[in-house]
Amino acid sequence: MEVESRYVAVRHHVEGFPSEDDFEVKKVKVRWTPESGEVLVRNLCLSMDPYQLNRMKRRSASHHAVDGIVPGERIESYGAGEVVASACDEYKEGDVVAGVLGWEDYTLFRPSPAVLMSKLAAAPSGDDLPLSHHLSALGTSGMTAYAGLYEVCRPERGEKVFVSAAAGSVGSLVGQFAKLAGCYVVGCAGTNAKVDLVKNKLGFDDAFNYKEEPDMRAALKRYFPDGIDIYFDNVGGETLEAALATMNTYGRVALCGVISEYTDAGGRPAAPDLLEVIYKRITIRGFFAWDFLARFGEFGGVVGDWIRRGKVQVVEDVSDGLESVPSAFTALFRGENIGKKIVKLA
Amino acid sequence: MEVESRYVAVRHHVEGFPSEDDFEVKKVKVRWTPESGEVLVRNLCLSMDPYQLNRMKRRSASHHAVDGIVPGERIESYGAGEVVASACDEYKEGDVVAGVLGWEDYTLFRPSPAVLMSKLAAAPSGDDLPLSHHLSALGTSGMTAYAGLYEVCRPERGEKVFVSAAAGSVGSLVGQFAKLAGCYVVGCAGTNAKVDLVKNKLGFDDAFNYKEEPDMRAALKRYFPDGIDIYFDNVGGETLEAALATMNTYGRVALCGVISEYTDAGGRPAAPDLLEVIYKRITIRGFFAWDFLARFGEFGGVVGDWIRRGKVQVVEDVSDGLESVPSAFTALFRGENIGKKIVKLA
Repeated sequence: MEVESRYVAVRHHVEGFPSEDDFEVKKVKVRWTPESGEVLVRNLCLSMDPYQLNRMKRRSASHHAVDGIVPGERIESYGAGEVVASACDEYKEGDVVAGVLGWEDYTLFRPSPAVLMSKLAAAPSGDDLPLSHHLSALGTSGMTAYAGLYEVCRPERGEKVFVSAAAGSVGSLVGQFAKLAGCYVVGCAGTNAKVDLVKNKLGFDDAFNYKEEPDMRAALKRYFPDGIDIYFDNVGGETLEAALATMNTYGRVALCGVISEYTDAGGRPAAPDLLEVIYKRITIRGFFAWDFLARFGEFGGVVGDWIRRGKVQVVEDVSDGLESVPSAFTALFRGENIGKKIVKLA
Repeated sequence: MEVESRYVAVRHHVEGFPSEDDFEVKKVKVRWTPESGEVLVRNLCLSMDPYQLNRMKRRSASHHAVDGIVPGERIESYGAGEVVASACDEYKEGDVVAGVLGWEDYTLFRPSPAVLMSKLAAAPSGDDLPLSHHLSALGTSGMTAYAGLYEVCRPERGEKVFVSAAAGSVGSLVGQFAKLAGCYVVGCAGTNAKVDLVKNKLGFDDAFNYKEEPDMRAALKRYFPDGIDIYFDNVGGETLEAALATMNTYGRVALCGVISEYTDAGGRPAAPDLLEVIYKRITIRGFFAWDFLARFGEFGGVVGDWIRRGKVQVVEDVSDGLESVPSAFTALFRGENIGKKIVKLA
């Protein structure tokens, strides 16, 4: 079988802020044969993840963990799709799957643990929820929030949790998960519409627009008169320093992304006060969702159930068509998305 | 009973580098009565610890954890001494004890968990080793090294360990403990005499003088061609940044003190590359020895045994007489001590 496919590539390595001109849509014929051992998937929706920008750089600390992206070549990405041809028993035509696919119409994959591919009909999260949720609350963003909060931060009932980028794909879930764990939760975000969403739809105890706070330490002291126990950091910089200054003894900081540093957006990198870290015995830990893969089944079951029972709201920001990938992806770095950015394919 | 005693006080709050002029020796009469419930100790040796400088500041992150020192008043300090009068059953005249005493000839204490007082004859470490060892390898420095390495860093056989301030009271033990755990260990220090001690007496695999290395990252890449798994940090700044850059996935950084930041010695504070922390899933953790008090008995037994069997060398730098406390203490910040700085009283 041979299909016409399109894929999105970078024209060259991307340093600093990305622009739509850095991308191109290329055409290719994808050939599948019964002898190949491969599965052919027609992609239905694609996950837009800020960390992909690090992969597009010539050099990045990210290359320790994930391969760099080669200009002109296809870009692997978490996504969901439908099997249209399969040369192995585990998958058959019509199966709906989520896992590592690509920014393209069709993906060929060979079953292996590395592709993290799950069949939704058999997944603990079930297949009755919207497909896009498997890229947001039930996908990498959800698993990042779940593992980051429950494994890295280990909240106790009554603890005080601060979430930056609180209206983002991960932050919006971290805050809701922390509320379910009995915590007091305050988020910050960069527009009043995001603050309103976080407070009024997602049920955070409070939220504020950091652009309206000239002094982040003063703001945090106001929102956390009893100090911060857990800081789920998505931004680094001055916000991280201020959170450490407001933190209680045995505080925990989870780091899963620092979007401002992906773009070298300027802004001073964080210089955490190490005396605060020592005297308050603070732990700062970088992590990936996939370090906790053993809990992925449990995660899908628990969070799927929370969504069905209305205990967790899923916020998605959807664009249409493969050709919208460059604008959808670059919008992440302008803070334009609310919740998880997803591209649906026709 | 009333005894003439002298104590060392600060004349005023101390900011920046301390000098001997910041201190004074004062006289006082110490009165003990059988009705007081107190124990009177004649101090025999005193521990000189850099963190005391933070307590001498008007404001410091240390005040979250330990009380500030009031100018003119006595200064609590870990030490060892002999009971000369006791109004409680647990202690009797002649008992030799180690715990929280003071920079003074005589200390009155009331038994409580806060004073961490142990009778050496009954201690797991025994009382056959030199008394000063109970302030160094068997005291707070040893416990910091032991808990920091085994609890915070959790080394596995074959892992690569970097220790800064490697000839210091804590670093000299961390490196030896890491060798006993089967690790490859490299230390850095600020004089060639210290480097020689660390390599040739303490058995580190290698060591270097950081003052002779214009490029710390290049130095670490040379000493750690396979990367660093564990960094026991005593200095912060550029060394911490370079260690993170050289670190392997799942690396661990233990922070128990940042002597350069105690004195605001200049030198840029560390701005750790958060992308390194995330993509390598590094954990940075501040800690105190006393957070692991439950292991103090085990620690004393194990390390006492290592010392008796010659598996751990104890390096001490001893001054004589209470009047030498100001010069002994201030020498810590000029890097003049080798190993644990102790003041023996007459």
